[in-house]
Amino acid sequence: MNKLYVVGLGPGGASCMTQEAMDALREADILCGYTVYIDLVRELFPDKEFLTTPMTKELERCRLALSRAAEGKTTALLSSGDPGVYAMAGPVLSMQKDFPDVEIKILPGVTAALSGAAVLGAPLMHDFCVISLSDLLTPWEVIEKRLRAAALGDFVICIYNPASRKRPDHLKKACRILLETKSKETVCGLVRNIGRDSETYEILTLEELSGRQPDMFTTVFVGSSKTQVIDGRMVTPRGYETKES
Amino acid sequence: MNKLYVVGLGPGGASCMTQEAMDALREADILCGYTVYIDLVRELFPDKEFLTTPMTKELERCRLALSRAAEGKTTALLSSGDPGVYAMAGPVLSMQKDFPDVEIKILPGVTAALSGAAVLGAPLMHDFCVISLSDLLTPWEVIEKRLRAAALGDFVICIYNPASRKRPDHLKKACRILLETKSKETVCGLVRNIGRDSETYEILTLEELSGRQPDMFTTVFVGSSKTQVIDGRMVTPRGYETKES
Repeated sequence: MNKLYVVGLGPGGASCMTQEAMDALREADILCGYTVYIDLVRELFPDKEFLTTPMTKELERCRLALSRAAEGKTTALLSSGDPGVYAMAGPVLSMQKDFPDVEIKILPGVTAALSGAAVLGAPLMHDFCVISLSDLLTPWEVIEKRLRAAALGDFVICIYNPASRKRPDHLKKACRILLETKSKETVCGLVRNIGRDSETYEILTLEELSGRQPDMFTTVFVGSSKTQVIDGRMVTPRGYETKES
Repeated sequence: MNKLYVVGLGPGGASCMTQEAMDALREADILCGYTVYIDLVRELFPDKEFLTTPMTKELERCRLALSRAAEGKTTALLSSGDPGVYAMAGPVLSMQKDFPDVEIKILPGVTAALSGAAVLGAPLMHDFCVISLSDLLTPWEVIEKRLRAAALGDFVICIYNPASRKRPDHLKKACRILLETKSKETVCGLVRNIGRDSETYEILTLEELSGRQPDMFTTVFVGSSKTQVIDGRMVTPRGYETKES
């Protein structure tokens, strides 16, 4: 059977990948992905064939990977984080019908919500939402509706794509919406370059966050009403703590 | 420096752990956790010291692990999935003040939302919520409020702890709330025993889901209004697809 693995690399280099993801890369004849992700693993697999496409050519990349798999070459399509979160798993599965002889296997990875949370402390210990502020593929009104609903439900909110070159003020607009219902003092966190040597983080209030202009390598966390700063870490209590006292 | 690693095992055995999680277990003198999780790795590390506690003794387990780390033994506290999602990262960080000489490092893992999604297809390709139906530590009214908010925002919803022995009808109650606003035909998914040999999954409608009584080893996915069944997989379009056509 021809095989296409859709593989999550996690946040950084090889150390954040799962064993099964690493095994899939080893097994594959061809490694396919956005240039920056391929560069993360190129040195580990000098003898593989590499197929790279620019960032905006997502569908082309999926079709290319499926075509090569259909020719009989075991192929791995790489995403950073998890391929099932704002990434390649969906488009690939939508093309399955054109490549009936290819078996598609999705190998999950640690998405930025989880890896960023681990850097900040434990913000996702209770119910949470993940929302992307990119309006490239989603109308801004839908994003606004989801931000309002997330605030209404008092979820912890993890924000992907807080800014882009064309829309530097998305996070400011999002914070303004959240501030309609959430306290200015809500505990928030920013993590940049997760899993890289240049990783940095900051814990701040929602009011402070509304004045920031993070770049596209930043993941943003907005606490629930229960989220606290404990010893310099962002922690949302699960409830065990109150049970004990 | 004394070290405590809070380690996510991912969904199943060693193949789903990250390299850095595996390295932490190798480095540790003591592996501490709920008996069932320790059993997943016991064979790999026959020479370690093991500390196991029953499922309900979460805080005791955290304090035990911190105490042993404070004595100078490098200790790893194991969670299934991700330690930062309804697990041990929060309680441990809340106890940091009592153990100032212990450096706590959270090593994330693939939580059931991600591993379950990979089994079903690609349900989490767009904005999503994670909600636990356990009312052991959370008032049921809060859970209801979040379910309503998640439906209002048309999020994909991933449900943890859909049932317990004492409360077998939680999922039914949750579905009834979601059906106030969501279509009966909403695409849903169930995954049981993720990452084990006995793993099974099912794709069904929200109306069908409301008649099921899954066990505590099941993770439930409720689609957004856009979620589809494509070639037998549960897929939420990201939007690339419409961009192409």
